[in-house]
Amino acid sequence: MATDDLSALTAAQAAASIGDGFVSAEELVAACLDRIAAIEEAVGAFAHLDAENALAQARACDEWRRSGRPTGPLHGVPVAVKDLIDTADYPTECGSPFLSGRRPRTDATVVSRLRAAGAVIIGKAVTTEFAYYHPGKTRNPRDLERTPGGSSSGSAAAVAAGMVPVAIGTQTNGSIIRPASFCGVFAMKPSHGLVSRAGVLPLSRTLDHVGPFARSIEDLALMLDAMAGYDAQDPDTRPVAARNFRQVAAEEFGLPPRFAFVKTPVWEKADAGARDAFEQLAQELGDDCFAYDLPERYAEAWDAQRAIMATEMAHNLGKLTDQGGDRISSRFRAVIAEGRNVGATQYLAAVALARALRDSLVELFQQECTAIITPAAPGAAPRGLDATGDPAFNTLWTLLGLPAITLPLLADDDGLPIGVQLVGAPGDDARLLRTARALVERLSGAE
Amino acid sequence: MATDDLSALTAAQAAASIGDGFVSAEELVAACLDRIAAIEEAVGAFAHLDAENALAQARACDEWRRSGRPTGPLHGVPVAVKDLIDTADYPTECGSPFLSGRRPRTDATVVSRLRAAGAVIIGKAVTTEFAYYHPGKTRNPRDLERTPGGSSSGSAAAVAAGMVPVAIGTQTNGSIIRPASFCGVFAMKPSHGLVSRAGVLPLSRTLDHVGPFARSIEDLALMLDAMAGYDAQDPDTRPVAARNFRQVAAEEFGLPPRFAFVKTPVWEKADAGARDAFEQLAQELGDDCFAYDLPERYAEAWDAQRAIMATEMAHNLGKLTDQGGDRISSRFRAVIAEGRNVGATQYLAAVALARALRDSLVELFQQECTAIITPAAPGAAPRGLDATGDPAFNTLWTLLGLPAITLPLLADDDGLPIGVQLVGAPGDDARLLRTARALVERLSGAE
Repeated sequence: MATDDLSALTAAQAAASIGDGFVSAEELVAACLDRIAAIEEAVGAFAHLDAENALAQARACDEWRRSGRPTGPLHGVPVAVKDLIDTADYPTECGSPFLSGRRPRTDATVVSRLRAAGAVIIGKAVTTEFAYYHPGKTRNPRDLERTPGGSSSGSAAAVAAGMVPVAIGTQTNGSIIRPASFCGVFAMKPSHGLVSRAGVLPLSRTLDHVGPFARSIEDLALMLDAMAGYDAQDPDTRPVAARNFRQVAAEEFGLPPRFAFVKTPVWEKADAGARDAFEQLAQELGDDCFAYDLPERYAEAWDAQRAIMATEMAHNLGKLTDQGGDRISSRFRAVIAEGRNVGATQYLAAVALARALRDSLVELFQQECTAIITPAAPGAAPRGLDATGDPAFNTLWTLLGLPAITLPLLADDDGLPIGVQLVGAPGDDARLLRTARALVERLSGAE
Repeated sequence: MATDDLSALTAAQAAASIGDGFVSAEELVAACLDRIAAIEEAVGAFAHLDAENALAQARACDEWRRSGRPTGPLHGVPVAVKDLIDTADYPTECGSPFLSGRRPRTDATVVSRLRAAGAVIIGKAVTTEFAYYHPGKTRNPRDLERTPGGSSSGSAAAVAAGMVPVAIGTQTNGSIIRPASFCGVFAMKPSHGLVSRAGVLPLSRTLDHVGPFARSIEDLALMLDAMAGYDAQDPDTRPVAARNFRQVAAEEFGLPPRFAFVKTPVWEKADAGARDAFEQLAQELGDDCFAYDLPERYAEAWDAQRAIMATEMAHNLGKLTDQGGDRISSRFRAVIAEGRNVGATQYLAAVALARALRDSLVELFQQECTAIITPAAPGAAPRGLDATGDPAFNTLWTLLGLPAITLPLLADDDGLPIGVQLVGAPGDDARLLRTARALVERLSGAE
């Protein structure tokens, strides 16, 4: 295969090709490195890239396979890892000059799990400063004058630009779903507690999630199979048997999935084009889609998320921020100061509200819909590189810890992508993946 | 058997006698009611007592047994339940005139579990107001001019006075171990999350525990077997297999248990008599006991417990306190006001400190000792009924969620009891019970 063809493969296709011996891991990784070399200067997706290290990992994969030993489902597949997530063989600077040169001694649990599945860690993808709003160098590959979104800017851009088939990022508010929407790729924020955060810079135990970026639903499932699982180092993970996400995602529904179209209390933040596109989409789904108005109490969710996020960030990163002084952005220092002013009962009320809102949605999923359908972002990626866009359409689902997927199914008049966000029942990530696949097939006319 | 003999039986003896047909549940409960009738006016252990209801439960137990159906390990055994714990057939007023006449519709989970084991709920034992410091009517059966301790005042007094063989109470700071020490009975605060708090008035999710009072270690284990277990309504319980506490408690040690004598940073709060008694006890244990100084950081635990307790009480009971106005004691209103002034990051730092202190003790239990030995209270019960004594020797172990047992093994010069507190490794309640049994046998000269 030509280099361009190789770097365009999905992870599932690449793993199959390597497994069948049509291509080596080294060839695949070399093809991705070529693609990166050609466009990285324009896109700026990587904080740290070490071609020799990546090729060495790939050669070790090939040697392992030639020895006849069993290989994992991601054997030889290159993955970009958000620079907020620890890696033993690359620096992890969390987008902050204050952490310049920081080198963790060990991999984050999720990185270890990816390596155990055979993945090649090709490099560290750009994050905004500490996964908050201060942007990094990354540009949107769909239009270099626009933001890729954040905070997982590099992960979304690298997958969108064909540099890697898959990447991982984190979301505390809208940091996976929003950049994926802006860059036009698939991405998933799994249920809270499904993927370990051990070794990931902690912003907020209540809100932090780790999830995959990809160019297909199948790849999201393949990644989640490798990433998900109990970890004693993350007290929010649970020692329960993992689903086979890839298999469940591929299964057919007995009855077609039914969608609740939820505008949310921030609907007026969506631009006119996005609002029209979603109204049309809901119409197109006909009887399989119904409008659902969230009870009034849900309007409190945005303030609650803000109180929890600011408080827990101040708890986790306050000391570091004080030490960093003016090497920390003023916007970041402001949220730490904000968190320090939250009262403890206000914080506990916000946590209790999140639990109550999540519990009150369970019935909707049990009785009325397979998934919620709602915008992934207020519209296409905004122009400019000084800001990363508005996470308002992600806040509620992050606060509730529900699984969410964005699908690059819509576009604005300029052809820029707008993501369709599907939100599933708590803990039912497998069925959400299956629902997403069914929706993509339906809208692309496949059966 | 004579009535006096019946009311003096332990729960294990009583259950065995009923099981063997030597005595009926009705006779046992009637004997306890007689004993209550004789001394309740002096002691004031009960907030609600309904002799007819108790006898009806007992007769139903007898009928059930006569029908040949299988019986539970507490079949026919009367239990007193702290009036902070919901019961469907008695009022639950939580020691507050503001909740006068409150009647829950359902039993707390722990009450359901006791009933399922065959127990007769004989009545509701006095609690201080909302399990905080404002005392109820209960007097110490060992000396009626002294406090029984609190907040589980009635539970401790009822068991000490021979009114019931067993009772249950709750502890958020020192509310099980301290009154048991003052009244001279056995009691246990199990590991955090072992016994469900669903249906118990919530003060503090982080600190609330439910535990048994009894007149033997065997009865504590018997009660814990019935009380412990996963409950989806209490998010801190875990779906793991329960131990057979009674069986494990009865097993012999291969090597004799080894005790770490921990004075804690509040040692100077103990009175001279208690300090002497503990120094002597440590000497008596010889090579099986060594002095252990907690690292300096443990001194912060008392402030941390205070911040967590006040905050979570304000979160859970703030609204009720506002509604109650002057029907709520000023001392209670003061802690709610205090909780409302705690900052969210101060609260999270306290929670993080608790976790760190608990984790840093694990090695001590794994490598050096079977249990910590330390005072259950600063000394014997203080004179007077206006206050319930100082929980300072309980605060640390409650904050850390470790299992703790008090044993009525020491006495002051007036013969008033002083409890010996044993503290075990997190989650190892079974071994702690076994250690307690071994210590009691050793000090009583049994082999």
